[in-house]
Amino acid sequence: MAATRKAATRVSVVRDGARRFDDVVTEEPLQIRVGEVDVAVTMRTPGHDFELAVGFLVGEGYVRAREDVGEVKYCLGGVGAAVEQDYNVVTVELRVPFAGSGAPRATALSAACGLCGKRSIDEVHVQCDDLPASTVPLALDVLLSLPDVLRSHQTLFERTGGAHAAGLFGADGAVIVAREDVGRHNAADKVIGRALLDGRLPLHDHVLVLSGRASFEMIQKAALAGVTTVVAVSAPSSLAVAAAERLGVCLVAFGGNVYAHAERLA
Amino acid sequence: MAATRKAATRVSVVRDGARRFDDVVTEEPLQIRVGEVDVAVTMRTPGHDFELAVGFLVGEGYVRAREDVGEVKYCLGGVGAAVEQDYNVVTVELRVPFAGSGAPRATALSAACGLCGKRSIDEVHVQCDDLPASTVPLALDVLLSLPDVLRSHQTLFERTGGAHAAGLFGADGAVIVAREDVGRHNAADKVIGRALLDGRLPLHDHVLVLSGRASFEMIQKAALAGVTTVVAVSAPSSLAVAAAERLGVCLVAFGGNVYAHAERLA
Repeated sequence: MAATRKAATRVSVVRDGARRFDDVVTEEPLQIRVGEVDVAVTMRTPGHDFELAVGFLVGEGYVRAREDVGEVKYCLGGVGAAVEQDYNVVTVELRVPFAGSGAPRATALSAACGLCGKRSIDEVHVQCDDLPASTVPLALDVLLSLPDVLRSHQTLFERTGGAHAAGLFGADGAVIVAREDVGRHNAADKVIGRALLDGRLPLHDHVLVLSGRASFEMIQKAALAGVTTVVAVSAPSSLAVAAAERLGVCLVAFGGNVYAHAERLA
Repeated sequence: MAATRKAATRVSVVRDGARRFDDVVTEEPLQIRVGEVDVAVTMRTPGHDFELAVGFLVGEGYVRAREDVGEVKYCLGGVGAAVEQDYNVVTVELRVPFAGSGAPRATALSAACGLCGKRSIDEVHVQCDDLPASTVPLALDVLLSLPDVLRSHQTLFERTGGAHAAGLFGADGAVIVAREDVGRHNAADKVIGRALLDGRLPLHDHVLVLSGRASFEMIQKAALAGVTTVVAVSAPSSLAVAAAERLGVCLVAFGGNVYAHAERLA
């Protein structure tokens, strides 16, 4: 099956005994390469693939700012994959030494995975710069309104019912970028990748809003991008709470609970 | 932080300006070893770890039936990990040749990941035995009632709001086993692992019910366990639909859409 670049796919379904059509979220593998090294395969929704690849590398601790990243391109013509996978392979050239080059991360990520490629438990934690102990840029009631703003950008979810979303908001409470994907972590990677390409990293004084749960890897991704405030629609995990406390991320859930660093709220 | 064996963790939160307590779903890394080979690290909710490890190996195509699996045990005392990770390392001894031994899968899975460890797109697909083209064992209206039955077993979700679930149902429509986990794929692995340890594989004429979305890896896990009918609460992805069609899985969504092999419904 040739790669598609569409975020939704029309499929035939049977409902109430009759055959109809339905739109489902597109899921396809994306192979991320750094130079000639295969770094990861992630199951993602096509679109914003360069952002996804770059954001993934932020979340792995390989790049931190715009100047770390050189050319980003599709490997058309089947470099390292069959020709039908055109547009499913992205190569990123780095301007910094590639920490993963010595031991290529034999990694494949599902549609909801953000931690792949570690062989032992010790490697689950990526080294992270200290975050500033800054005041949260927005009042709690404003933070709790952001998921509704993000929801208004979730057109793929409206159409398919099967897409997660992430949104980056500025200190003025306005949305900077919102992205959707079949995978939670991909949506966050796309947002962070866009922000990196726009020269915004580190994202101190920004707020990352997640349509789903806050698990450990989502907090780690946020912290690696410099984000000090995360709002998640659903409940966090124990390790997400512990990571937010340790890394210095104010973690707010949509229901109004503040799970970490409530003292930073204005 | 020492490993806990509790599925929920009490944390301190701030709500409406006051400090309270809240239960969140526990998320901790589990390192899965086959003999002396580190196969994967998955972010999971503690409990039913042996089932998880064995079910994971089914989903990777390494084991197919009870007789393939020997001893399963915790590596207490810090084999390959610090002592504080006791109960976070499980070793499975196999009675079949380990296909992963030549090229250990440098794999770590997030709380929602099921495809990790592949270096290229071609490796995303695991070779799967042909499934029988059997009639679905239950009528559609019965299938559509199963998520409510599963929900009645989701006590961790009730308590924390942050847990996925999977349930295995027999041809009589009765629940055989239900499991919860912070990760979608872990819940399915635990169910399939329990079924393997009970000598039930392959699971022809069984129904796997998923509390969340049907993504590609969930369909592949089901097919590798021999399951021919999957009911998912939320919408599937395009690749899940394609995989169900190709592998011979009747795929039903809670809303009533039948996405693949509707002709097998009685």
